[in-house]
Amino acid sequence: MKFLCSQSDLNSNLSLVSRAVASRPTHPILANVLVVADSQKNRVSLTAFDLSLGLETSFSADVSEDGKITLRAKLLNEIVSRLPEGEITLMAEEEEDDDDDSQIVVLKSASGQFQVRAMNAEEFPPLPTVEEGELVQLPIVMLTEGLKGALFAASSDETKQILTGVHLTGTPDSLEFAATDGHRLSVVETTLSPETDDEGNEQGESPEMPNLEGFAVTIPARALRELERMLGSRSESDTIALQVDEAQVVFQLGYQRLTVRKLDGAYPNYQMLIPQQFSRSICLERKRLLSSLERVAVLADQKNNLVKCTFSNEDGQVSLSVDTQDLGSAKESMPAEVTGNSGEIAFNVKYLMDGLKALATKDIKIQLNEGNQPVILNPLGGLQMTYLVMPVQIVK
Amino acid sequence: MKFLCSQSDLNSNLSLVSRAVASRPTHPILANVLVVADSQKNRVSLTAFDLSLGLETSFSADVSEDGKITLRAKLLNEIVSRLPEGEITLMAEEEEDDDDDSQIVVLKSASGQFQVRAMNAEEFPPLPTVEEGELVQLPIVMLTEGLKGALFAASSDETKQILTGVHLTGTPDSLEFAATDGHRLSVVETTLSPETDDEGNEQGESPEMPNLEGFAVTIPARALRELERMLGSRSESDTIALQVDEAQVVFQLGYQRLTVRKLDGAYPNYQMLIPQQFSRSICLERKRLLSSLERVAVLADQKNNLVKCTFSNEDGQVSLSVDTQDLGSAKESMPAEVTGNSGEIAFNVKYLMDGLKALATKDIKIQLNEGNQPVILNPLGGLQMTYLVMPVQIVK
Repeated sequence: MKFLCSQSDLNSNLSLVSRAVASRPTHPILANVLVVADSQKNRVSLTAFDLSLGLETSFSADVSEDGKITLRAKLLNEIVSRLPEGEITLMAEEEEDDDDDSQIVVLKSASGQFQVRAMNAEEFPPLPTVEEGELVQLPIVMLTEGLKGALFAASSDETKQILTGVHLTGTPDSLEFAATDGHRLSVVETTLSPETDDEGNEQGESPEMPNLEGFAVTIPARALRELERMLGSRSESDTIALQVDEAQVVFQLGYQRLTVRKLDGAYPNYQMLIPQQFSRSICLERKRLLSSLERVAVLADQKNNLVKCTFSNEDGQVSLSVDTQDLGSAKESMPAEVTGNSGEIAFNVKYLMDGLKALATKDIKIQLNEGNQPVILNPLGGLQMTYLVMPVQIVK
Repeated sequence: MKFLCSQSDLNSNLSLVSRAVASRPTHPILANVLVVADSQKNRVSLTAFDLSLGLETSFSADVSEDGKITLRAKLLNEIVSRLPEGEITLMAEEEEDDDDDSQIVVLKSASGQFQVRAMNAEEFPPLPTVEEGELVQLPIVMLTEGLKGALFAASSDETKQILTGVHLTGTPDSLEFAATDGHRLSVVETTLSPETDDEGNEQGESPEMPNLEGFAVTIPARALRELERMLGSRSESDTIALQVDEAQVVFQLGYQRLTVRKLDGAYPNYQMLIPQQFSRSICLERKRLLSSLERVAVLADQKNNLVKCTFSNEDGQVSLSVDTQDLGSAKESMPAEVTGNSGEIAFNVKYLMDGLKALATKDIKIQLNEGNQPVILNPLGGLQMTYLVMPVQIVK
């Protein structure tokens, strides 16, 4: 194997796939990245796979000799990131001894050369492929919106299995993203709108919109965070290909591919949790509420993260208060439009702040009923998003 | 006690003194900051002291009632940093019960109010003062130069006592900074040059230059890092007052004061370690050497941090190489002006890099003798600095 490429191409592509390298690999080969050079296409592909999440990418290079090899991902990444800009030659020397599994790879740059031990590519597990699943082209904007509003609410507790993922459900013209960790739930509905041209007219020859009816899958949050990173630099008007079968989900974006094993099991029927009727509503400025919560959280931090929220219809006001025996107390108030009876309710301040950060509009609406029933937060205008948080019982 | 001040003044001064609050206080009062309001001066002072390092600062405020109190530094800092910009009122309520040590302090801002428990100021240990020591006015530029070149070389191993400090020695017209951790030594000489006006003439009425003859003190590196931070935003042409007695060192910079306990014991006679004659010298580009070292360090990291340095008089070249059994090897070369015989020598790559980062000139000179004797690095032009590093024996 031998190829010539630019330091920046090799570096950026290595950084990307390195994120799928297992931090504590169960087998030495899983600490490696697979490098494949193809002289016909004049491209080099890099693959990393921790047996759940796989990332593959390729870039153009001057390939003078086909071949494949695996190299320690972390070491290679650290070396390449420090090399000076300019051309790099990478070549695997012929194996002198067939019994020996290890080969030497030479990395030459203007400043000198590195020789690093490589492992045979045959041992590297192949990335799963999806053969039968239907291929869907999704506008990138749907994914970025959905992930931004839902990803943070997934559970980070690995024992909660299905809750560590985001659940995607399709209708003929929309895709819904839902995530919950058992304490709060975030649901975002994104719409497949027909593409319009600059004047707002539907384009005659726009690509067919996919029909997502019946589509349902739960994808690990960790993989979706990598997807979010991949999407970060892309134009929102581009599309990404998504393919799902019994076991795997594959996203393909240009030369970048992300594969991940689906989360098995039935996702909770979260729509049942969302009350359909409310006896009270509060409209107020999102950032004002958020910054007040951030201040009182300093004290709430010391005592179960509990914040009491008093809302007064007569005064048109919401007050937040925290009272700790040891350290002191805090009280802040802000104007609000309160419909229904005045009252009070308590929350875990962290869950409330998380939701407010994601809602992303100037004003929001809080809807609630008496007692201990779920509370709903919605943005006023913009995104179709519902954030549900359970109140905490106030001990009198 | 009652005063009105701006959020930004209280916040920036709190951040400054908080760095002297013990992270694991041996007594609850040491987790606090002392707040003193003076209605005559219309100033509020803040003090923190961990029994070794003390920081005091003051800012103007509208003081309507004198008083002093102590508050938990971390909590106060977290609250104040999140308050909206604008005016803050801080007041301590009258003690209702004299038997009770704790008082309530009220912090009011436009957004609401906090009530935090305070502790009696009487318990707060007074900052040590220096009564007898001579007061010296030092140009700030001397300190910033000296600290930048020496501070990094002090030991971070608390058991090494005197080596955890930087040693300052005066002559009639210079101040020398030295630090060593036993593996390497950095010495910077800064000169007390008479102030000149814009045309380079000596100013007739410039303040008297201090005579530093006989001055010698070892100051904990931790305190000097805080001093470096304090100096960061100041003009280099300003001066800072320094006063030393048997036990304490005090720096005074405007309204900011830093006190620290001196490190006891004799500082090693480091001048003896620096060879006076050398059989070989190598002049080369500092950044080129440093970036090569950063690359080969990736491999050296895995094996004792050892880098081999081969220098050739004939080729006018220095080569760096690292060889690890397990991972591979690296070799880089760069042009150099070599005087004396060609040869090879090995270093701990980290010590070499640390020194190169501090030398701060385009080119540097490395001087050495045969065998295992100390190696000296000097900048070519600029700062008067000597960096000594011990070579590592090459096992053949």
